[in-house]
Amino acid sequence: MRSERIWTAALLIIGDEILSGRVQDRNVAPIATWLNLQGIRLTEVRVVPDLEPRIVDAVRALGGSNDYLFTTGGIGPTHDDITVDAVAAALGVAVEVHPAARAMLEAHYAGRGGLTEVRLRMARVPAGAELIENIRSGAPGIRCGNIFMLAGVPHIAAQMLEALTGTLEGGRPLLSRTIGCWVPESEVADLLAATERAHDGCRIGSYPFFREGGVGANFVIRSPDEAALEACAADLVARLEETGRPVVRGGI
Amino acid sequence: MRSERIWTAALLIIGDEILSGRVQDRNVAPIATWLNLQGIRLTEVRVVPDLEPRIVDAVRALGGSNDYLFTTGGIGPTHDDITVDAVAAALGVAVEVHPAARAMLEAHYAGRGGLTEVRLRMARVPAGAELIENIRSGAPGIRCGNIFMLAGVPHIAAQMLEALTGTLEGGRPLLSRTIGCWVPESEVADLLAATERAHDGCRIGSYPFFREGGVGANFVIRSPDEAALEACAADLVARLEETGRPVVRGGI
Repeated sequence: MRSERIWTAALLIIGDEILSGRVQDRNVAPIATWLNLQGIRLTEVRVVPDLEPRIVDAVRALGGSNDYLFTTGGIGPTHDDITVDAVAAALGVAVEVHPAARAMLEAHYAGRGGLTEVRLRMARVPAGAELIENIRSGAPGIRCGNIFMLAGVPHIAAQMLEALTGTLEGGRPLLSRTIGCWVPESEVADLLAATERAHDGCRIGSYPFFREGGVGANFVIRSPDEAALEACAADLVARLEETGRPVVRGGI
Repeated sequence: MRSERIWTAALLIIGDEILSGRVQDRNVAPIATWLNLQGIRLTEVRVVPDLEPRIVDAVRALGGSNDYLFTTGGIGPTHDDITVDAVAAALGVAVEVHPAARAMLEAHYAGRGGLTEVRLRMARVPAGAELIENIRSGAPGIRCGNIFMLAGVPHIAAQMLEALTGTLEGGRPLLSRTIGCWVPESEVADLLAATERAHDGCRIGSYPFFREGGVGANFVIRSPDEAALEACAADLVARLEETGRPVVRGGI
């Protein structure tokens, strides 16, 4: 496989509510899927509490080692919304009111009590940042260099991603094929490893399941190269069929 | 509030399948909830790819800064199951076959083809480790000092937690009360901050929602002290009711 630049991203979830177990995260999977479509690989996710020093440390670690860093949560108007301050602190820049954000909030809150000091908090950005459109609610997302601050509410975060679609530089998306088989994975472990070794640039993940109906596994082949992927998938199907176990293209 | 020891844990998810967006994590919320019941606070979650150096780095960083480290995934028999090797490398210890795990697997696979070399992979542990019971499938979980390696399959991970219930030292669980209100959070941001300031040891998180029916937020108060929590919740309800907006104890 020809060598190529791989673009990477990390995701930082500012999330007391995730760490307490109160709510289940619903942002990772859609953000991961969207990133892959942009040709960017999600290489790490971290969930940290709503504490500025913890966010600062994570922003520095993840922003420095990836092409892009996305954050979710903490960009609203309340006292626990500290993402902007933490990112500014991590970058060593001041926090300022963005004129366009102020104008958007003024328009949004006209006739709803006006732009109070608290609401103006949602116009604060790290110095030099740009806005990410938010058609759903008042507060815009924020882009500051390679850092993208999204809302924590999933449908608003998704809409901000939509506004960013096609604007980021990336490489080839990682493609995948899933092959399911009604077999204990321990019976085909050697076969899987041999198939992976025979197909350069392909990785095979094995995901077992244990259901009332029986034991099986889905094998997910990943590669940015479609031809290599198809060849590996065909080879894996053939090898699995030789075992006499039921094989399901597309997964079980 | 009296000062007290706070016990912490981190969770490391070994998860190509989460980072690709293929599956949504279903382990964080139950593990977080279970930890809290043991009096242990989940302070960080990381999701890293199935790559040994990445797992080693995360194990060192998270294990060193928390009382406990839990991992999910990568303890099966296939080539992509590298958690045991990575944890052993992080700790600088050898990998060995655990005699009790070998005996369990021998019993489990009697009449199912026997204990092959591949299946014996599931008996490998970092030197000195103990087993965590797994009544659902062959592979046991592994405890190595303050590191707990659980299965990635959610119902098996949950069953391993059940086996650990009551065995870990912890402090007081963090308690919570949720108060919902049909109000834009920006209208009550000052009120929330003032309420938090007035109640030592309580933290208030604000989680807005935007539904067809309107705009509102859930306010989650957290404290290990039940009396402080109740006082804060009563105060918050009273202050919210003064605004004339509908308040819903227990959340919306």
